[in-house]
Amino acid sequence: MKTLTEEILAFNKSRGWTEGNRDARNLATSVSIEASELLEHFQWLSGEQAVAQNREGTMEEAADVYIYLLQLADVAGFDLDEAARGKIKKNAIKYPVPAGEHE
Amino acid sequence: MKTLTEEILAFNKSRGWTEGNRDARNLATSVSIEASELLEHFQWLSGEQAVAQNREGTMEEAADVYIYLLQLADVAGFDLDEAARGKIKKNAIKYPVPAGEHE
Amino acid sequence: MKTLTEEILAFNKSRGWTEGNRDARNLATSVSIEASELLEHFQWLSGEQAVAQNREGTMEEAADVYIYLLQLADVAGFDLDEAARGKIKKNAIKYPVPAGEHE
Amino acid sequence: MKTLTEEILAFNKSRGWTEGNRDARNLATSVSIEASELLEHFQWLSGEQAVAQNREGTMEEAADVYIYLLQLADVAGFDLDEAARGKIKKNAIKYPVPAGEHE
Repeated sequence: MKTLTEEILAFNKSRGWTEGNRDARNLATSVSIEASELLEHFQWLSGEQAVAQNREGTMEEAADVYIYLLQLADVAGFDLDEAARGKIKKNAIKYPVPAGEHE
Repeated sequence: MKTLTEEILAFNKSRGWTEGNRDARNLATSVSIEASELLEHFQWLSGEQAVAQNREGTMEEAADVYIYLLQLADVAGFDLDEAARGKIKKNAIKYPVPAGEHE
Repeated sequence: MKTLTEEILAFNKSRGWTEGNRDARNLATSVSIEASELLEHFQWLSGEQAVAQNREGTMEEAADVYIYLLQLADVAGFDLDEAARGKIKKNAIKYPVPAGEHE
Repeated sequence: MKTLTEEILAFNKSRGWTEGNRDARNLATSVSIEASELLEHFQWLSGEQAVAQNREGTMEEAADVYIYLLQLADVAGFDLDEAARGKIKKNAIKYPVPAGEHE
C-alpha cells in the first residue's frame, strides 16, 4: 500500500502541480493558512460547541494542515513521525515528570 | 508499540496536563501558533535558503504542529490519516485529472 | 468626526454584536485569522505578482486585520498608535543605528 | 509631525532595511507571524485572564502587527484608515441593521 506522502505526490504529479508545491516556503505558508482555516471554526465558539456543530469541517481542515505538513517534510527531507518522536523526547527533558509521578 | 497519539497522551497525563490540553479550541489555537512558528523560519528567506540554514528548526516546528494536530483529532474523535485519505478523495473530484493525464 | 474605533463600535452596537466582539481572546483570534486570509493572496505568488493581480483583495484583508486590532486595543485599554510609537522606540534600542548612519 | 508610516520608513532606512522590508509577501507573512505571537498570549487563557496577566505583552504584539500592516499598505499603495472605512461601508451592506434598530 502507498504511504500517504506517496499518494499526495502522485495526486500532484498527475495534475502537473510539481513546481510551486515543491517549494518549502509555499508549503510552510500553506500549513499556516490551513491551520488558520481550522481555527476559524472556533472563532466565536467554545471548543465543545465548535466540534459539536461542525466536526466534519474541523476534520477536513485538520486534514489540509496535515497534507501540507507531509509535503513540507518530504521537500525538507525528514519523516514527520520520527520528527514528532524526537520532539517528544526533547520535551521530556524540558518538562520533567514531577516527583511522585511516573511516565 | 504505542501509537504516537498514545505517547502524547501518556506524556501529558504524567505531567497533569489533562484539562487545557483536552480543549479543542486550545488545541486548534496551538496548531495555528506552531504553524506560524514554522513559517517564521521562512520570514525573510526563500524556501531553499530556509531549509539549508535551519533544517533542524523546520523539523522541530513541523513536529509541534503535528503533535497538536494529533491531540485535536483525538479530542474531536477522528483519525488524522483517515481524514487525509478522505480529503484527497474529495480533492480528486474537485480537481479532476486533466485529459491525457492519468492518476 | 468619529474616530475609526468609534465607528466600529457603533457598527457593532446597532447589530447587537456586543458580547463575543468584546472578548479579547475572540478578537486576537480574529486578528490572526484575518492576517492569514491576507497571506492567502500571496500563497503561490511573489509579492509583486500578488499586489498586481489583486490589490483590492489585499486592501480589504488588511482592513479586516486592522478593524479587529482596533477593537482589541479598545477592549484591552490601549491606543494602537501610541503602542506603535512605543514599540518603535523600544526597537531603536534593540537595533541601534549602525555607525556612520544617522536616524 | 511625521506620520507613523514615515517614522517606520525612516527607521528602516537608517538601518539599511530597504529590500526585504519592501517586499509585499515578506510583509504579509510578517503580519501573520506577529498576529500569531499576539494570539500566543491567549493560548491557554480566557480573554480576561490574558489581558489582566499581560496587558503590556498584548500591546506590544498588537503594535508589531500594526507596524507591518502599515508597511504593507505603503508598499501596495493604499491608506490603511481609508481601507478600513471602505470595508466598514461594505460590511454595512453585507450585514444590514436589523429592523427596529438604527445606525
